[in-house]
Amino acid sequence: MNILDGKQTASAIKAEIAEEVTQMIERGERAPHLVAILVGHDGGSESYVANKVKACEACGFNSSLLRFNDDITEQQLLDEIKKLNEDADVDGFIVQLPLPKHINEQKVTDAIDFRKDVDGFHPINVGRLSIGLPGFRSATPAGIMDLIERYGIETKGKHAVVLGRSNIVGKPIATLLMQKAQPGDCTVTVCHSSTRNIKEICREADIIVAALGRPGFVTEDMVKPGAVVIDVGTTRVPDASRKSGFRLCGDVDFDNVAPKCSYITPVPGGVGPMTICSLMKNTLLARKGIF
Amino acid sequence: MNILDGKQTASAIKAEIAEEVTQMIERGERAPHLVAILVGHDGGSESYVANKVKACEACGFNSSLLRFNDDITEQQLLDEIKKLNEDADVDGFIVQLPLPKHINEQKVTDAIDFRKDVDGFHPINVGRLSIGLPGFRSATPAGIMDLIERYGIETKGKHAVVLGRSNIVGKPIATLLMQKAQPGDCTVTVCHSSTRNIKEICREADIIVAALGRPGFVTEDMVKPGAVVIDVGTTRVPDASRKSGFRLCGDVDFDNVAPKCSYITPVPGGVGPMTICSLMKNTLLARKGIF
Repeated sequence: MNILDGKQTASAIKAEIAEEVTQMIERGERAPHLVAILVGHDGGSESYVANKVKACEACGFNSSLLRFNDDITEQQLLDEIKKLNEDADVDGFIVQLPLPKHINEQKVTDAIDFRKDVDGFHPINVGRLSIGLPGFRSATPAGIMDLIERYGIETKGKHAVVLGRSNIVGKPIATLLMQKAQPGDCTVTVCHSSTRNIKEICREADIIVAALGRPGFVTEDMVKPGAVVIDVGTTRVPDASRKSGFRLCGDVDFDNVAPKCSYITPVPGGVGPMTICSLMKNTLLARKGIF
Repeated sequence: MNILDGKQTASAIKAEIAEEVTQMIERGERAPHLVAILVGHDGGSESYVANKVKACEACGFNSSLLRFNDDITEQQLLDEIKKLNEDADVDGFIVQLPLPKHINEQKVTDAIDFRKDVDGFHPINVGRLSIGLPGFRSATPAGIMDLIERYGIETKGKHAVVLGRSNIVGKPIATLLMQKAQPGDCTVTVCHSSTRNIKEICREADIIVAALGRPGFVTEDMVKPGAVVIDVGTTRVPDASRKSGFRLCGDVDFDNVAPKCSYITPVPGGVGPMTICSLMKNTLLARKGIF
């Protein structure tokens, strides 16, 4: 059993990005600049954004954090987005989700210029990923593909089972895994809450990507010996023994599943760091221009 | 065994559209207007476009056919598209594919204003379909979903196996079948040329959508009794006994597979007429405004 070490892999990729940024600066070019918009004071969002800002530092990027109270109106937020769309000093920006209920998240996503949409959530980037065109790939699926690639895992003709059909993980990772590319070229099955025989389907999988948000859902009896298991779950479970009061729980019962796997991602330290790393890759691409 | 009669279903839908158009005209509104661009003289393209023009007549639409020789330059074609984008009397238009080799099809598709892209091939419409937002849905997958809906076929929790991963059929029909909707909510497996045990996977399917373009690929031993079989294949096979010199062949060995199915589409007269019908629905939507 091998651990797919997202933390180490992400560090290596960030070091490569930092090296490229150093060269850009030596050539007299401006470093990439990522802006994050944070609305309100959700604990999870605060920590995600803090990690993104930290990753920018590691890569030599400029970063800015724009904070707004949760009583900001939708129109005010759309006006801020318009400013960032038009600001030539901003290469890419993200609006940390979730947003307060009075703001339409899709409207906000649609308002972002797709050439600065480094989260890859704009319909144009979603469509370009599906068609197989260059564009900003949604950060979590792109991070998973990078992890598979860096570990040299053979995927061609393998049966990948994706648990979950969300717009930001399930659907795009299914698309990337089926595409005629390396990594990719898998037979792909997508399972979800309406799937009847999910255990049987998982047992057929060479690769399982678990993105249901249900702690410990994937148990030992669902995994074929030698399978590759990618755990996207990051549910906060109360834990009085931690200073934070919680621990992050994946969708996989790691302790019992890991011994059966050829490769498995831990939580934390697996997909999470790779996701942030993809955001950095997208920001570098935005700086260099990909459209 | 029941035939999924695409010809009859498409006729019924076109009659409904024609009724709506009659009411529009009675209210003093303009009828929807579809423009088709045809480059060169490919036999298949000629007949597809002729069928689309005929469908426009059945729906009470205005239609225009713009013909260009196959020596038209890419820039000239892009200029024509720009004119149509800006023409307020044109609700939607299509560029019949394939195009001559010296023209970049993706560039042409990207140049179409997505609000007039009634083929649903523009990345924004592909992305909106994936996310589950309103938009122009690619005509063949939308037609398949309509056929399933009109026949009242229960899909929730069923295992759908899609053969083929093309951008215009395989990927979008997989997305529509997995979406939390009725019809939809299926467990979906996508198979393709790199899939190893395609026969075994098909035998598990409650619904098979065959879109490989390989005549007679799906044989009797690959189909579970009671399965629903949707045949998207339309390969032209030489046939000296026909006036045209060819016949259309589906991906399914119809004669031997049909007796095992609960529902099956014939070729021709199944998915084909539904595809053209979806184009009419999209054109009506374009006239009414959906964005």
